Amino acid sequence: MYPRNAWYAASWAADLGRELTPVTVCDRKIVLYRQLDGTPTALADACWHRLVPLSMGFLRGDDVVCGYHGIAYDPAGRCTFMPSQETLNPSASVASFPVVERDRVIWVWVGDPALADPGKVPDMHWASDPAWAGAGETIELECDYRLVLDNLMDLTHETFVHGSSIGQDAVAETPFTVSHTDDRVTVTRWMLGVQAPPAWKYEMELAHPEWDGGPVDRWQIIHWQAPSTICIDVGVAPAGTGAQQGDFSQGVRGWVLDTVTPKTATTSSYFWMRMRNHTLESEEITRDLTAAVHRIFGEDTAMLNAQQEAIDAHPDYDFYNLNIDGGGMWVRRLLDRLVAAEGDGQPHARAAVTAPSTQAAPAPDPMPAGSA
Amino acid sequence: MYPRNAWYAASWAADLGRELTPVTVCDRKIVLYRQLDGTPTALADACWHRLVPLSMGFLRGDDVVCGYHGIAYDPAGRCTFMPSQETLNPSASVASFPVVERDRVIWVWVGDPALADPGKVPDMHWASDPAWAGAGETIELECDYRLVLDNLMDLTHETFVHGSSIGQDAVAETPFTVSHTDDRVTVTRWMLGVQAPPAWKYEMELAHPEWDGGPVDRWQIIHWQAPSTICIDVGVAPAGTGAQQGDFSQGVRGWVLDTVTPKTATTSSYFWMRMRNHTLESEEITRDLTAAVHRIFGEDTAMLNAQQEAIDAHPDYDFYNLNIDGGGMWVRRLLDRLVAAEGDGQPHARAAVTAPSTQAAPAPDPMPAGSA
Amino acid sequence: MYPRNAWYAASWAADLGRELTPVTVCDRKIVLYRQLDGTPTALADACWHRLVPLSMGFLRGDDVVCGYHGIAYDPAGRCTFMPSQETLNPSASVASFPVVERDRVIWVWVGDPALADPGKVPDMHWASDPAWAGAGETIELECDYRLVLDNLMDLTHETFVHGSSIGQDAVAETPFTVSHTDDRVTVTRWMLGVQAPPAWKYEMELAHPEWDGGPVDRWQIIHWQAPSTICIDVGVAPAGTGAQQGDFSQGVRGWVLDTVTPKTATTSSYFWMRMRNHTLESEEITRDLTAAVHRIFGEDTAMLNAQQEAIDAHPDYDFYNLNIDGGGMWVRRLLDRLVAAEGDGQPHARAAVTAPSTQAAPAPDPMPAGSA
Repeated sequence: MYPRNAWYAASWAADLGRELTPVTVCDRKIVLYRQLDGTPTALADACWHRLVPLSMGFLRGDDVVCGYHGIAYDPAGRCTFMPSQETLNPSASVASFPVVERDRVIWVWVGDPALADPGKVPDMHWASDPAWAGAGETIELECDYRLVLDNLMDLTHETFVHGSSIGQDAVAETPFTVSHTDDRVTVTRWMLGVQAPPAWKYEMELAHPEWDGGPVDRWQIIHWQAPSTICIDVGVAPAGTGAQQGDFSQGVRGWVLDTVTPKTATTSSYFWMRMRNHTLESEEITRDLTAAVHRIFGEDTAMLNAQQEAIDAHPDYDFYNLNIDGGGMWVRRLLDRLVAAEGDGQPHARAAVTAPSTQAAPAPDPMPAGSA
Repeated sequence: MYPRNAWYAASWAADLGRELTPVTVCDRKIVLYRQLDGTPTALADACWHRLVPLSMGFLRGDDVVCGYHGIAYDPAGRCTFMPSQETLNPSASVASFPVVERDRVIWVWVGDPALADPGKVPDMHWASDPAWAGAGETIELECDYRLVLDNLMDLTHETFVHGSSIGQDAVAETPFTVSHTDDRVTVTRWMLGVQAPPAWKYEMELAHPEWDGGPVDRWQIIHWQAPSTICIDVGVAPAGTGAQQGDFSQGVRGWVLDTVTPKTATTSSYFWMRMRNHTLESEEITRDLTAAVHRIFGEDTAMLNAQQEAIDAHPDYDFYNLNIDGGGMWVRRLLDRLVAAEGDGQPHARAAVTAPSTQAAPAPDPMPAGSA
Repeated sequence: MYPRNAWYAASWAADLGRELTPVTVCDRKIVLYRQLDGTPTALADACWHRLVPLSMGFLRGDDVVCGYHGIAYDPAGRCTFMPSQETLNPSASVASFPVVERDRVIWVWVGDPALADPGKVPDMHWASDPAWAGAGETIELECDYRLVLDNLMDLTHETFVHGSSIGQDAVAETPFTVSHTDDRVTVTRWMLGVQAPPAWKYEMELAHPEWDGGPVDRWQIIHWQAPSTICIDVGVAPAGTGAQQGDFSQGVRGWVLDTVTPKTATTSSYFWMRMRNHTLESEEITRDLTAAVHRIFGEDTAMLNAQQEAIDAHPDYDFYNLNIDGGGMWVRRLLDRLVAAEGDGQPHARAAVTAPSTQAAPAPDPMPAGSA
């Protein structure tokens, strides 16, 4: 259902400290923590001895100590202490997962560690670019992560689900284009000369008090990066002021940064941030915009969870696709290819706990800005 | 476990309006609503496109609009709108179920629509006959609907479960007779010259203030109609005043109207009404009697749910039958025949959502009164 | 997973009276009650007729009456009454289980009644010996009963789980010895000349106000009796005052009496008592010590339930064993032998409810004191 050889968001960087933090990524139970020097670390969250979650234990320096019998592991997952014996069993270890901290997110790789290239971390550089301001949160969903991707790849649903904020008939009525490579899909929709819906009217008035409230050119450019990151370039500018040609100076622009981590086949952690290019210093506006997106995504949550329940009740149902599903269909097709290319890929049960990583994650490379 | 070619109660008529109302009947998720002219309508509660429950959407005139992408369906289940495209996929539809509104109940047919004969709606005409007064409610049960039928076909349990209201030793001690046709079973018990138990004493004193409190003739005549409707003729009259010969004028008489809808193999919706032939204008007495039956059936609910749990824990246990099970055994046997006659009858998963009804339900025929 | 031919704790004797009390022992639903003369009685908790739990019924003299249809059973499980019929079906019965009341506990035998020898009731005589004072409680656990045995057979975990009360590094660092017979395993650990941890310091100060607070000899001698009773001889005495040679007069000594009843494969009822040999008359000290053990075992409960969850998530994981697991490994090995010797042993579903006991339990024999 999901590629394993990929970076997935496991935590917000700001939330991770010296607390042992249990997370689930691609059906793997993982304990996260920072070493004394701040290095983020991810180990299998099950003691080699009797499977007790290491997250119920404690840290001693950079080592995790199991809370049951005191067995300790270093950040590479190697056992460093056993009670009542001086010789350590040489097989004693827990899996250690490559980790990268970038763009406010802790990214973890649960597949083959030899393939864990930090250059493949999804690009969400707007989160750490001082030209952009904003915040976000995590939503825990009771659904297949691909339902979230479907949702984000087709914004037609804004018209019906989010009618009071960002939805308007123009979204459902305006044609869009789809393009793709092997691991990217882009959906582009320009709505020229439309009325700004309430949420955009609010931002225009903040950034451009002189704005006359007239028609705007509105855009939604949806960038999917394999396997589950979607960054959406959104905004409005007074109609005919050149936004479609690249001049955004008269309008307001935002990026909705979304990355969805499959926890299990039917549960997901959805990390999102809403960045903007105006009023960068205002924490109040950050709070307001975050609260607004929180409300909007809450409407999606109810729909997505209900959709999963209906799928569970009709396990053999093949989805029908409409024109609006053009972007999502490509995402599904490319994901299927990635999963098929990995083969089964499920290590056996013992390995699932103990297979140590064969190399540490290399240092991250700088990412080209705006590559999405 | 249940015949599909049958009318089942899906809602009280009084509860159904312009709200989209999700119900489950025989493992089918159904959305109920009334059209603008009041016609009750039942569609599969899963959008053809991506299975989102239509009950999370809204009505536009007589059409249901899916709350996710705005796809709309008319009362026959045919798609009438798709976003961002002008041509509708000709296969786009959801199943529409025949519906009849009769005797305060919305009845739905989930089997072959070609067989949906309104003449087969179970007879509960006392609910709409001005010679009778009363009210009822729905009980949601965590058990096989047949356990409710067992319960109602043998009223011996009143002595043990309902000792403080309608139970008395005479119920368990008095012989009864059983008769049946292919789709009816009747159990008749006359207890002659017994003391009235508290609940009947209360009604006699209401209807016949002159009553001397002496012995009564008490009757319980249980009428099962396939598949799951049981109407019970109950009452008491002063002993020897001719009730058994058809003269009820000196006594009080009631009908307990019960119809049980299987939601799943182990959950049921139990609709009941308690009608009486006296003090017809008193809403206070209606409230009192309804509350009394509510308490009595609450005692049954705990027993039935516990029985289902025990059955789940002993899946291969064959019930033993006693003399008291004579009526219930015939009900079970006739139900088995009806289910066997339908064959498997489970449409495949896609059809479960989309198979449209092939004809509308014909107008209801008048029912003969008192046919039970 | 558990031997069936064994006595398991089903209730505290003090808790059992004329209330019908449902319990589960080795996947058997059982109703317990006392007869009018006080004799404890155990019947299958499912009526022969329709499986309704007898514990929802009531007592009539020494018989249990089903709350649904009034069918009654005597303490041997034989049906003594059926409604509406004079002849009783000769097969009508529910299983009756041998019961022994001893050492504050009601013990039940769910295996072959012909093998139910009261001489095999686990020895917990300290609970009824006036030379010892104390109390206990039951902990309901969401785990395999063997995880509790593992926990008790290796007290190394005290150092890590119970560091604020009874844990100290010496427990994990001091060697121990293991001995065993076919149905007993003993683990012995003497920590000579150590500091008393807080809980033992408290007891020494109570029993020996003259104590100087200096080093103590501390012991933990763990006695397992098949299948699931563990009595632990614990205590401290001022270093070198002869405790290891059998003179406990200068110290304080306790017995932790533990017996664990498998309810299902992954749920258990854990009965424990904490007895002491000092300050016998003080109910306040009994309350304090019981509360202290309650806190300590609460720390274990969280760990054991989490361990079971992890096992469920890794069903094929083979535990690794360390030196500290020497005692627990023998317990597991002897349990496996006992289970294998019984063969499948699962009676079929009908028998599970109705097989009556073929003999009453013989009168208990006196047990040799201190046999553990």
